[in-house]
Amino acid sequence: MMDKDPPAGLFRVEHRVTPADRRAMNGHGGGVLWLTGLSGSGKTTLALALEQHLSLKGYQAYVLDGDNIRGGLNSDLGFSPQDRDENIRRIGEVSALFAEAGFIAITAFISPYAKDRRRARAIDPARFREVHVNADLETCERRDPKGLYRKARQGRITDFTGISAPYEIPENPDLVIHTGNESVANSVSTLLGFVETEFGAAGSMDRVA
Amino acid sequence: MMDKDPPAGLFRVEHRVTPADRRAMNGHGGGVLWLTGLSGSGKTTLALALEQHLSLKGYQAYVLDGDNIRGGLNSDLGFSPQDRDENIRRIGEVSALFAEAGFIAITAFISPYAKDRRRARAIDPARFREVHVNADLETCERRDPKGLYRKARQGRITDFTGISAPYEIPENPDLVIHTGNESVANSVSTLLGFVETEFGAAGSMDRVA
Repeated sequence: MMDKDPPAGLFRVEHRVTPADRRAMNGHGGGVLWLTGLSGSGKTTLALALEQHLSLKGYQAYVLDGDNIRGGLNSDLGFSPQDRDENIRRIGEVSALFAEAGFIAITAFISPYAKDRRRARAIDPARFREVHVNADLETCERRDPKGLYRKARQGRITDFTGISAPYEIPENPDLVIHTGNESVANSVSTLLGFVETEFGAAGSMDRVA
Repeated sequence: MMDKDPPAGLFRVEHRVTPADRRAMNGHGGGVLWLTGLSGSGKTTLALALEQHLSLKGYQAYVLDGDNIRGGLNSDLGFSPQDRDENIRRIGEVSALFAEAGFIAITAFISPYAKDRRRARAIDPARFREVHVNADLETCERRDPKGLYRKARQGRITDFTGISAPYEIPENPDLVIHTGNESVANSVSTLLGFVETEFGAAGSMDRVA
């Protein structure tokens, strides 16, 4: 009974289900696939396709992107430099929680600054993989799926990555996907293989459980 | 090829794995168990024990508590009224993401204000369950596992819930657990049954997938 002298073992239950337990249960480890690249490079397309394919293979996978972050967790943030910084910081923290919970968290944000990506990695480096979704600016601007490049060229959007704000190309990404010259199917295959190698049952993550 | 005219179907992959897909995969739906109660009422003990038991039963379950939130996602927040408010707001948003991803998210925070709990529920009401971890103040103060009540009585902690700040008792909680007069094992059994009824394979959440 908790209201009198608690037995010595009362708090013995107070430990978490471990990543190793979750790995055994799910058949794969948890990790973060941090997709970074220009607007229009294909991050969201790849993230959602990868989530589907991983799910069909029995993986626990979840995409964090503007759709489910900007309207909720980060609805208090605007687009000032500090707010953009805080936006990426929180996404790093939430994706690390998902990874700890055993998921393949796939993030799809431009995340143009190397220091922001380094900080996201530093939360849980063993589970973090930086994926450069690499298409050159011309390609992205030609696609312009949301019409944002046009607006940026017209000066109707300021601080637009690639036009009026820098994109710092990843220097040592864990994987590069060349979406400018290969099909979505090809890119997804590469990503699937990467996830399996890095976080799958036989993957290197066995070392860190 | 993505760099030329993309085929019409290029973006057909852009939809999420649905909650129904995840339910089929996991054998249960996603949800938030929002544990609220005084410091010392047993929220963390119950949350971690429930996580373990759910995990053993094959559930995807994950505890959000001070341990994994205060040092990471909410490390920028202090204990001012605004910061406490923002603390609970973010936890509400993150737990809703976990629920959408198919997890039973178990939150263990005092969350003393009804308006904060209402806001957390409002994010995704169909998946949200408020659980009042109910032990009276005398019991919690006698337990005082972290010595906080003593410090609060000495005035060394200000705005301490139950002593120098209010705890607004849930008026219509979805479940009440009386940790003052039942064993941890008993409380956990009640919670397990509740989760199974609300989010299990045969549970009412079938209606919302």
